[in-house]
Amino acid sequence: MSEETAQRRGRGRRPAAEVRAAVLAAAGRILLEDGMQAVTFDRVAMEAGSSKTTLYKWWSSPGVLAAEAYFAQSRRVLEFPDTGDVRADLITQLKAFVRWLKEEGAEKPVSELLGAAQLDASLARAWSESYALPRRELARERLRVAVRQGQLREDADLDIIVDQLWGACYHRLLVLRVPFDESLAERLVDQALYGSAKHGR
Amino acid sequence: MSEETAQRRGRGRRPAAEVRAAVLAAAGRILLEDGMQAVTFDRVAMEAGSSKTTLYKWWSSPGVLAAEAYFAQSRRVLEFPDTGDVRADLITQLKAFVRWLKEEGAEKPVSELLGAAQLDASLARAWSESYALPRRELARERLRVAVRQGQLREDADLDIIVDQLWGACYHRLLVLRVPFDESLAERLVDQALYGSAKHGR
Repeated sequence: MSEETAQRRGRGRRPAAEVRAAVLAAAGRILLEDGMQAVTFDRVAMEAGSSKTTLYKWWSSPGVLAAEAYFAQSRRVLEFPDTGDVRADLITQLKAFVRWLKEEGAEKPVSELLGAAQLDASLARAWSESYALPRRELARERLRVAVRQGQLREDADLDIIVDQLWGACYHRLLVLRVPFDESLAERLVDQALYGSAKHGR
Repeated sequence: MSEETAQRRGRGRRPAAEVRAAVLAAAGRILLEDGMQAVTFDRVAMEAGSSKTTLYKWWSSPGVLAAEAYFAQSRRVLEFPDTGDVRADLITQLKAFVRWLKEEGAEKPVSELLGAAQLDASLARAWSESYALPRRELARERLRVAVRQGQLREDADLDIIVDQLWGACYHRLLVLRVPFDESLAERLVDQALYGSAKHGR
């Protein structure tokens, strides 16, 4: 426990929101540095200066805490920009996503989290609710703007665009297990926007 | 051991190819009926009428055997048709893939296999080499025909089409964990072929 944490404790309880943020920050840091197995309630409690009882109260398992911490960490780096040009903004966001996976250490923990989620229903639910579905909603919001601005077709299925862009990266990461880099972003976006058929419908 | 198997053994060794086929069939049947944990060398050897020694010699782990058996099972049901109309053929194949996942019992074992693969490098390699990359090559072959016939653009990235179709299904299955059904197939194919942008490039 750091001196600062000890002093703070001496002055009484920290507000719950502050403890929660400290726990998520510690869990996220441990997850990205040392992987999912390292995210234990013992280590997170120690590094966040919180009690293990608190962790047990708020999270049903270390995996569930790790999923929520992953969303909190990624939120900082995976913003959806809005410059008014949906093609440019999707490329920017996808490049940030690929860098997050490939250069900023997220590839291993996200693979581990998603792997464990296939064998653990409560972790699967936490992943969907804490990360995957909220991120899809952020993407939809940006895409709806593009529909309103006449850049995407009114009848475009926005969820399919999400599958075609971020889903494509997960496909290469988890299913095919082939390398990819930022240069994939522009090709994915162009093929999703303009299609692969030689002629229109 | 069945009487027939016992008799056959009495007559001496079966040819290796025959044993291999029997082992893959038994492992695939167990995988689809009872899930990945049920695929043990003990049970597969018993049901295939082969020796455990043979299994240890040919497969480094039951998971690796399960991955190869999964490919053998799916091959029967996931053919790539070629009627000359790539849109219709992709929809047919994707519908068969969704039925295979959702109605023919593959969803659970494929999720378990891919989940375990994220935490086990040798299983990951077996999955890629035995299933994912060979299936991608089968898809590419069909797509190359469509390029030659002028149905797909010469500069279309065929691997991206694979990501946009089958990768989209895996995204919903493993990452978002949302339900989907056969009706997704046509929408996926149309959006991949014709794009989501309101105007061309």
